[in-house]
Formats: sequence, C-alpha cells, structure tokens
Amino acid sequence: MSIAQWEKFKSTYFQNRELGFAIDISRMDLDLDKLRSYTPLVKEALDKMEKLEHGAIANPDEGRMVGHYWLRDDTLAPEPLIRNQIKDTLKAIKDFASDVHQGKIIPEKGGKFESLLVIGIGGSALGPQFVTQALGSPADALDIFFFDNTDPDGMQNILSAIPSLAKNLTIVISKSGGTKETRNGQLVAKAAYSASGLDFSKHFVAVTGEESQLDKTAQSENWLKRFPMWDWVGGRTSEFSAVGLLPAALQGYEIETILAGARAMDQMTRAKDLAKNPAALLAVSWHHVGAGVGSKDMVVLPYKDRLELFSRYLQQLVMESLGKKLDLDGNVVHQGIAVYGNKGSTDQHAYVQQLRDGLNNFFVVFLEVLSETSSKSVSADLPKTFNAAQVEVDPGVYSGDYLAGFLQGTRAALYDSDRKSVSITVSQVREYEIGMLIALFERAVGLYASLVNINAYHQPGVEAGKKAAADVLDLQERVMAHLRKSTTMLSVDEIAAQIGAPDKTETIFKIVQHLAANRRIAVETQASVFEDRYSARL
Amino acid sequence: MSIAQWEKFKSTYFQNRELGFAIDISRMDLDLDKLRSYTPLVKEALDKMEKLEHGAIANPDEGRMVGHYWLRDDTLAPEPLIRNQIKDTLKAIKDFASDVHQGKIIPEKGGKFESLLVIGIGGSALGPQFVTQALGSPADALDIFFFDNTDPDGMQNILSAIPSLAKNLTIVISKSGGTKETRNGQLVAKAAYSASGLDFSKHFVAVTGEESQLDKTAQSENWLKRFPMWDWVGGRTSEFSAVGLLPAALQGYEIETILAGARAMDQMTRAKDLAKNPAALLAVSWHHVGAGVGSKDMVVLPYKDRLELFSRYLQQLVMESLGKKLDLDGNVVHQGIAVYGNKGSTDQHAYVQQLRDGLNNFFVVFLEVLSETSSKSVSADLPKTFNAAQVEVDPGVYSGDYLAGFLQGTRAALYDSDRKSVSITVSQVREYEIGMLIALFERAVGLYASLVNINAYHQPGVEAGKKAAADVLDLQERVMAHLRKSTTMLSVDEIAAQIGAPDKTETIFKIVQHLAANRRIAVETQASVFEDRYSARL
Repeated sequence: MSIAQWEKFKSTYFQNRELGFAIDISRMDLDLDKLRSYTPLVKEALDKMEKLEHGAIANPDEGRMVGHYWLRDDTLAPEPLIRNQIKDTLKAIKDFASDVHQGKIIPEKGGKFESLLVIGIGGSALGPQFVTQALGSPADALDIFFFDNTDPDGMQNILSAIPSLAKNLTIVISKSGGTKETRNGQLVAKAAYSASGLDFSKHFVAVTGEESQLDKTAQSENWLKRFPMWDWVGGRTSEFSAVGLLPAALQGYEIETILAGARAMDQMTRAKDLAKNPAALLAVSWHHVGAGVGSKDMVVLPYKDRLELFSRYLQQLVMESLGKKLDLDGNVVHQGIAVYGNKGSTDQHAYVQQLRDGLNNFFVVFLEVLSETSSKSVSADLPKTFNAAQVEVDPGVYSGDYLAGFLQGTRAALYDSDRKSVSITVSQVREYEIGMLIALFERAVGLYASLVNINAYHQPGVEAGKKAAADVLDLQERVMAHLRKSTTMLSVDEIAAQIGAPDKTETIFKIVQHLAANRRIAVETQASVFEDRYSARL
Repeated sequence: MSIAQWEKFKSTYFQNRELGFAIDISRMDLDLDKLRSYTPLVKEALDKMEKLEHGAIANPDEGRMVGHYWLRDDTLAPEPLIRNQIKDTLKAIKDFASDVHQGKIIPEKGGKFESLLVIGIGGSALGPQFVTQALGSPADALDIFFFDNTDPDGMQNILSAIPSLAKNLTIVISKSGGTKETRNGQLVAKAAYSASGLDFSKHFVAVTGEESQLDKTAQSENWLKRFPMWDWVGGRTSEFSAVGLLPAALQGYEIETILAGARAMDQMTRAKDLAKNPAALLAVSWHHVGAGVGSKDMVVLPYKDRLELFSRYLQQLVMESLGKKLDLDGNVVHQGIAVYGNKGSTDQHAYVQQLRDGLNNFFVVFLEVLSETSSKSVSADLPKTFNAAQVEVDPGVYSGDYLAGFLQGTRAALYDSDRKSVSITVSQVREYEIGMLIALFERAVGLYASLVNINAYHQPGVEAGKKAAADVLDLQERVMAHLRKSTTMLSVDEIAAQIGAPDKTETIFKIVQHLAANRRIAVETQASVFEDRYSARL
C-alpha cells in the first residue's frame, strides 16, 4: 500500500453517515476519468429507471410494469388502485401477525402458533430465508421452516423437525400459483396434517396472484387467510411484498423498518451524480471489471455470519435478471454475471487459495459490518449478560477484531495479486440495513441491465426447463402405463419402440431406473444394464 | 434428442451395479476418440497416484507424504507406525462415541451428553457439516452445532440455540492447532461454559496434531480427550480422519460404512482403463471442457436436499487443490476451476435462466439419487407410518417423480443450448454413498492436478491473507495504544504520521472505524469523514 492508494481511496469513496452506509470502489481500478466516461450511459440508465418507477412498461416482452419500488413507497405507484392494494396488504399483514402473536388467531386445538412452515421456491423462498438468517434468533416469535424443493425426503426431514404440527402455521407462496414444487409441497404438508388428525385448512395461508390455481384452491378449501401478489412484482424482487413481509412480520421483525431502509436506499440511489450514487457506482464497477460481458464472476463475501445467505439471494437477483440471450434490440448477446460465495472469513479457508493464486476470473464484493453487537442470549444455561463480543482472545483484542482484520487482510492480499474488489460497509445488521442492501442491489442490477441494453425483468429461459421436465413426466406416464399393460418383460429399447418413442430411448432408460428404485417394478438384470428387462405386472 | 444420442450415451456410460454407481459424460462432447487421446496422460496420472498411495512425497514443496487414502485402507500405509496410528485412532473414536452414547462418559453435572458443538473452519468444518446434512435427522444421537468463523455475533447465536451447555460436548478441531478463528471460538466457548458455572475442561475434546499449541493447551487444561491429526493428511482431505469420523460417530452414523464406501471407490478408480475409471472420466471431462485452464466454472447441482452442502464441500476440495499460481516446473499458470451450486430443482428457480440463456462459462455436474426413500418421522404429532414419498401429487405420480423429471428436463434443456454436463448417479444417500462421493472427487482432483502438472496438496496462497490480517491486527494495536496515549483528538492522517505509518493511512481509517463502532472511542465528526478526529482517553 502507498500514500497514493489513500488518495485514490478517498477520491471515489462514497459514504452516507446518516444511513451508516459506505461503498469503496478503489480496488476496481476505475479512476475518476474512467468513471466520468460512464456519465452519459448512466444518465440514460437513471432516466429509464425513473420512468420505470413512474409506471412505464419496463418489461416489454411481458408488457408489464415493474413495481417493486412502489412496495416501499406507495406514493410512487402510478394508480390509486395499486396504492391502495399496497397499503391494504401491508395493513393486513401487520394485523394478521399481531393477531397470531396475541393469540387472537389460534390453532384449531388451542394454544398459540409456535412455528411457521413456508412452502415456496426461488423468489418465494430465498428472501424469507435470507431475512431469517440475517435477523433471526432463538427468541423469534415463531420458529421458521422451509419446503423449498420437491424432494420428499427433504420434506419428511423438515416435518420431523417441526416440534408440533398442531401449533404450526403454514404459508404457501407462489406468485403464479402453478409452481409444481410448491404445489407438491403443499400436498405433502396437507397429507401430514391429515395424518396427524388435524384440519390443514385451519393452518394454511396462501400468498399468490388473485384467481391463480393456488388462490382458487385456498378459497374452495377455506384456508385461514389469503394475501395477494401482483403481476407488477417479479418473484426475485418480491421480498417487500407479502412474500417476504408476511413471514418477517410473523417472526416478529419490524417490517416498517425494513421498508424504510429500502426507501432510503432508493432515495439515495436516484442521485444523478454518478459519484454520489452507490447503485450506479456498483453497476459501473461491474461493467468495467467484466468488460460489459460478465467476463468476471462476482464472489460475494459478507464478513458476518448473519449475511451468509445474501450471496445466494444475489445469485438469483443478479443471474436471473442479467443472464439473457437477447438484448432489447434482439441481438444475441448471452449476457450475465455468475455469482457465488458464502461468508468470510470462513471462505478464506475454502477457496482464497484459488482467488489469490489461481484463475483471475472473478472480482469480490466484500460486505463489512462495523458493529460486532451480539444477539441477546436466550439459552437456558447461559446468563443473559454473556456477550461473546466481549470475550478477550488476546490482551485487549476480541474475536470481532480478527473478523475485521481478516477482511482487510484478504482485500489487501487479493489486490496485491491484481484481484479486484468492491467493499460495501453497513453499520450493523438490523431491519433497516436489510432493506438498504436488498434495494441497493435491485437498483444496481436494474442500472447494469440498462448499461448492457437488456430486459432485467423477464426470464424466458426458465420455461424451457419446465417444458422439458413436463415432457419427462408425460413420458414416464406412458412408460408406466405400457409396463402395466405388457404381458412380457421389456427392455428399454422395446419400450421405446412399442410406445413409438425410439428417439427418447435414453430418457426412458433414466425413467425406468428411477421407477425401478421407487415403484413396484420387476427387473430382470442382464449382462449389460442397457439390456435389463422390466415389468409392472406384479 | 435422437437415436444417435442414445448410442452416444451408451458408448461412454460407466456403471458399477454392485456399488449402485454410474457416471454419464455423454453431454461433455468427449467422444471415444477424444477420450482415447487422453490415454497416455491418464496413465501417467494414475502411476503418480499409485506412487502417492504407496507413500511417495507427493507434496514436494512441503516435503510431505499424502496419506488420506490410507485412512480408509490402512494396509496401504507405508509404515507400520502409521498403520497403527490409523487403527488405534479409529478404535479410540468408536470407543469414545460408544461410551458417550451408553452414558459411560457423562457431563460433570450428570445426565447424558445431548448435543455437540464442533469448533473448526475450512477442512475442519466443511466435512462434518456436509455429512451432518447428508445423513442427519432429528433422531441423531447428538444434535450438532458449529462455530466456523470468528464472528462473535454468530457464536452468540449458536450458543443461544444449544439447549443446554451442561449437556453439550465440544470438539475443537485444528490440524495445525494455531488457526485463529478456531482458537477464538474455543476461547468464547470456554468463557460461555464458565459463565454458566460449568468446568469447560470436562466438556472439551481436541482433534489436532501432536504437540501443536491446541494439543498443549488441551493437555495442560486436562481436557476430556485428545485425538490426533497427522501431517500426511491435508485439511481438505481430512473427513476420514478424526476430523470427520469423530463427529459422525458421535451423531450415531456408521463410520465403518463411510470408510467402506470410500475404499470401494478407491478400488474402482485405480482401474488403468480410462473408460472404466470414473475418477479419470471426471478429470478428463474437466480438462476437455475447460481447455486444461479451467475456462468453465463447475456448477454442482445435486437433486437431493441432503446433498446441498456437497457443492460447498467441493468448492474447497477443488479450488484449494487446483487454484495454483505455479505448475510443478515453476511456470506461472494461474490454474483452477471455480465451483458453485446448491441443489436442484431449487437452483433452477434461481439461476437456470442464466445457465440456459446467458453466459456459457460453465458446465454442470448433476448428482442423481435413485431412491426417494424418506427418513423416518420423529415428530411428536406425525405418525411413524407417514411417508412424504408416498403422497400422491397427481394420479400415480409422486413428488420424487418431479424431482427426477426436473433433473432430466434441465439436463436436456441445457444441452439443447449447447451447455455441457456430467451426470453422476448413486442409488441412495447413506454412509456408503457419502464415502464413495468424497473419494470419487478426491481422486478426480488428484488426477486432474497431474493432467495440468500442479501440486494439488499445498496451499501457498493462504498464508498471504493470514499474514496481511496479522499486519492489520498489529497496526490496530499500535493505533489503539497511540489513541490511549495521545492527549489530543487525532485525525487518521495524524495517527498515521505519528506512529510512522503514513503508507498505511487507508488501513488505519478502516481500523478506527471498526474501533469507533465497538470500543470506547470518542469521535469528533467533521465535514468529511476523512477528517474525523478520535480519542481513546475517555
């Protein structure tokens, strides 16, 4: 390090004391002149975002408005109807959580709700999971569990961990109301309540688009409550809708403060001056380091256990928003930025070896939290006064000093090897900062998308996988029906030929292997696994 | 898909029925001719591994043998001394766990040990964390918790979640015995026991190298038990030493079966014929897809909740082993393969959009588990007969069918967009398969390292970060001492000048910000944060 480095650091450092927020891009080698060269592009991006915030159709393919910024500032919403939907839903969430906490809404067999099962996937799980880890403690109003996949073994394990289904509230979250993993989780949970002699409908709450399949099911089965989702909120930006706020309110977090943090960040990142706009600084840094084509992976390293899931949250926000084949003019661009990371200093012991010495195919986003403040103890044995942050590990030195030292040390060691990094600082990890951090990256992603001229708000590539999966399930049905009907044992090639799908032989091979492992299927093994013969007439 | 694809699939498919294991590299576009061209390189790599298994110095920089393969087959160990160390330690682990389970080793205040806190980081945490998630259930003999960082707030949260410290056993794991994060965790845990009126030494167990700092501490403080680590076992390959086996045995897993699975995979992957050696197939696939320079990231997607942490385990194993600056001849090569991923189908909803449509800078390793078998229920309400895998979600269709369908569908959809993948199949997730999977990747990494001519068994880049962090802590001490001594409030520039470290002004700025947030430091704010003035004379 040098004195010049200190001047360089100061020249681009941005801090907002009031918010306890700072961003340092000095390790991105983006000096003032280079920064300035981005001014026209950034101006255009900010203009587009302003229009988006005022209700322009910012998702042209789907002809939709993009309204997640209204969720934390309903005065922005372009129509009174939307404004009222936001207000009413927020009130309904607070009322519902308060009624649960106060024992006004209670389980069918009495007592109070003590735990919460959230059934959702992708944007309907990552936000609540991140916020739970960031703000949670054993003192939360409700213990939280997640079904975030269609793995029956995973679901069974979660069901086994819930202390009492009789005192468990279940929230099923799906914007479209048709997500298969979530639908399957809902049916498994329903079966579990029934097997336990409980009326699931007295425990189930839906968060979904009005008139979706899930909404209709919840209505017809008379679930405890329904909360709305809207087509102007994308799944990956839905944390500030009922998707994220309902679980957070039930756990006892201050949802108004989360919203206030996001609103403050929105406000700050509307600044027209690039040097004073942290979202723009971030977007420009990404553009500069990855040459506008995502040539460097983004490694997210929060030095704080509570923020460990932030990289996973950002993985969706960034990759689903930016990973696009076409730009807005229809050119094939194959854009994106790959995101990974867990937490520091833990990850230093996993892969800093490669980051420092190996492939230089990444940059790091360090997240620094100034306050070491530790949670209150709630354990039976541990006195309430015990504070891990105040245990001296060397004379006058505490474990948090090491955490801070490892962050600075790693940042320096990487830069010494010409590895770039951005550092973001917040004062602590509470509701306000969670709101700020999510908003910061939402806006940086939106601005970056403008810089590279793509639509950040659709996900056309997701459908192909779903369609392909549906094809596999259709094929499985045909295979199973044929195996039930056939009077002889059949090889994979024979099944394929007989059901008229010789081009699908490989998939049929995978299907019968799966069926043979789990269903009543007889297998006659042959010398080669490809010749094995199957029957379902047992 | 086509009939040709089925032929291609069959031509390179490798299966071992006895082990319930298969690997499919047909989506790596590595046909038989290309495969054959690797034969001489692979032969050389296998020869090197054979020598390593017989005790050659395979880690030349450190002059060390690389002995993790002996841990599951002590007959391989080159010396009787080592053989006996392995046998004795395995017996000691089993005896200790059995004594804990049977109540022969009990907490100081009576009862039985009911929970386990593992304090370790990197290779001393990732293995136990992965195995816990893969094999664990609420029915485990001991509930497990981890300190895997030096974040006091994270530690406080864990301490709060441990139901009773009085019934908690703590294992401190550090091969070198000098890892700061682990040392700090140990001191915080010790303070917590003391604050709870407990004698920590009656609860503490050490796993460390003989005569290390930790070993000496454990001796002098008369801890409950010490287990050895050896310099011929690397941290990232230590799961089959006491590091991994002690927690696993205490949780009630069959450690002999884990070892048997690893031994079987070792055996299978000694095959000289590349086409019949899954570790070689994997290594060659990586080499082919990444042009021998790691140009593609490896996205690890197990379609099984229990395997979610495998990608994180592999992140260390692969990146710390392969991320190297120099090759064995001293050429600057900056090798490595970046690894990320969580689980399918969950990750489909996070970033398959980018994988399918965006940057083609990756390949996928799909992990398929044939059996849907679900864990036994242990919840209070749920009947023991409840089985999530048997809940019908469509007529004759189960949630596990969707999991299988999403895997096949995603693999197909990616390949349709020219995105490569390898698929690995195991029959279930039990002890045996965990042993197999770890061994498979250990060997693939070893072989790949030979293909690119690097030392997979050292980590020279890790030291730089540690050294840099130590420098920051030293500087903090000097800053703090100076702030205590100074009679006037000082700016960062003044501190730097007065302690003779003007080249470290930026670091001092970060240090005082951290100190001001957490220690008794007075701050006089100025118009610019760079001019703020500090004092520690309160």
